[in-house]
Amino acid sequence: MFFKKSKPIIVTEADGNTLISYKCKKKLYSKQSPYQKVEVFETMDLGRMLMNDDIVMVSERDEFVYHDMIAHVPLFTHPNPKNVLIIGGGDGGTAREVLRHKNVETCDMVEIDEAVVESCREFITQTSSVFSNPKLNLMIADGIDFVKNTKKKYEVILVDSTDPIGPAIPLFGLEFYQTIHNALTSDGIVVSQAESPFRHIEQQKRLIETTRSLFPKVYFYNYANMTYPSGLWSFMFSSKKYSPYEDFQKERYESSQMEFKYYNKDIHKACFALPSFMKKELNL
Amino acid sequence: MFFKKSKPIIVTEADGNTLISYKCKKKLYSKQSPYQKVEVFETMDLGRMLMNDDIVMVSERDEFVYHDMIAHVPLFTHPNPKNVLIIGGGDGGTAREVLRHKNVETCDMVEIDEAVVESCREFITQTSSVFSNPKLNLMIADGIDFVKNTKKKYEVILVDSTDPIGPAIPLFGLEFYQTIHNALTSDGIVVSQAESPFRHIEQQKRLIETTRSLFPKVYFYNYANMTYPSGLWSFMFSSKKYSPYEDFQKERYESSQMEFKYYNKDIHKACFALPSFMKKELNL
Repeated sequence: MFFKKSKPIIVTEADGNTLISYKCKKKLYSKQSPYQKVEVFETMDLGRMLMNDDIVMVSERDEFVYHDMIAHVPLFTHPNPKNVLIIGGGDGGTAREVLRHKNVETCDMVEIDEAVVESCREFITQTSSVFSNPKLNLMIADGIDFVKNTKKKYEVILVDSTDPIGPAIPLFGLEFYQTIHNALTSDGIVVSQAESPFRHIEQQKRLIETTRSLFPKVYFYNYANMTYPSGLWSFMFSSKKYSPYEDFQKERYESSQMEFKYYNKDIHKACFALPSFMKKELNL
Repeated sequence: MFFKKSKPIIVTEADGNTLISYKCKKKLYSKQSPYQKVEVFETMDLGRMLMNDDIVMVSERDEFVYHDMIAHVPLFTHPNPKNVLIIGGGDGGTAREVLRHKNVETCDMVEIDEAVVESCREFITQTSSVFSNPKLNLMIADGIDFVKNTKKKYEVILVDSTDPIGPAIPLFGLEFYQTIHNALTSDGIVVSQAESPFRHIEQQKRLIETTRSLFPKVYFYNYANMTYPSGLWSFMFSSKKYSPYEDFQKERYESSQMEFKYYNKDIHKACFALPSFMKKELNL
């Protein structure tokens, strides 16, 4: 009844008991790539929305939350992030935020699915306009192979992945994090999309056990946006040397005069304060 | 297709462009009260769920987030909360958390809708078991009239209201907060359910303008649970004297040895770190 006269987008949560539907004006793009179904919709009030296999990746209205938090927390922790690598992130939002930092000389971005890049280049310029930035080196390739074979060292690597289904499954494994460790400088930081503590605490446990075996410092931090179901979502912050508290680059943060819609210096620390159930389950 | 063989609960967001459906086993309770439609469902994976006029009030799986945050932040800020008043909160969850504090001598609770109390008493004992606590004084009455007429003074008042529709509209107005101010001790604190910054920033602005005209200290703090749509939600903390930072009752917190599933001493402070867009809009 509610959606009779419009074409809804249907989103199913992984566990199959909750269904979220967004009213939309039209479908702008649809392609079955070798990896997933890629679609872009014009929604009624969330702007344009990218969906992979019926899961919301990005909406124009709330993408600032995720992209602020994946990029600025590590980039304002490392004292001099010159080379940054993004695995995934094909919409461009993460690269856009990374390249606002003047220290960053190059940003390599490895997206496996050309259809994601193509659809965003055409229909979500809010995130994809970064594709023309000369500091960005965008490659359509398998991020796992790239990290395994690269000779370059990065101060910061961002694993901007989808949920651990389909092509993203290996991005949650030990073998991948061993190669990430190798591709980082001796004081490098990797931040990874780490699911929702309310729904995926077991996956979070496996992730943290994996990275604890490789990195001396591992933390989780949280954020909430409008379109990821179950409210609270996490990033994992694994570091060879720096801590987000003691090593917060206050001076650079303040002198940069960068403005953010979500991130700020209070959020930088507060996001690491975790609910008790998470601290207990993840032993943090 | 997804819900063909089951009876879904349908939840509509206020703005009408997003629809959330929960798969459920059965409807346990349904009554059209003088104020609203009150229903309790047995869901597939969120436990029992109370809905008023098709809006989720409480689910057994995630109610700990809201109830921890409305109760413990003010009760661990005020140095000696002896008398607490709850407006609304008919499910009992807020009273349950309030009465875990040994300082609290009496908790008065004024719920306008007997059907909410009745349905939770029978079907959601996880929250309503507090109704038998001798320190709880549960009244079925209009909270607005009660606050206007009471001669008692409270250290802490909790406005545990639904969204500003139907019977809850006046709970977001100046006249109500003037009577709240009168019903507080000279060092009292009122915490109020304050909607979502992503969806209701204009309501938040009006609320904070209202209380700033009455209280010297006004703050917002955030939380995220599984079932309130749009991820991030807020409480407003208005205080005659105490600040949640400087006046955090660390010693009482630690000696109490209370355990919480969401709240803890880091969250107590971190929840007041607000996203930049909220700070800007609310001038915080």
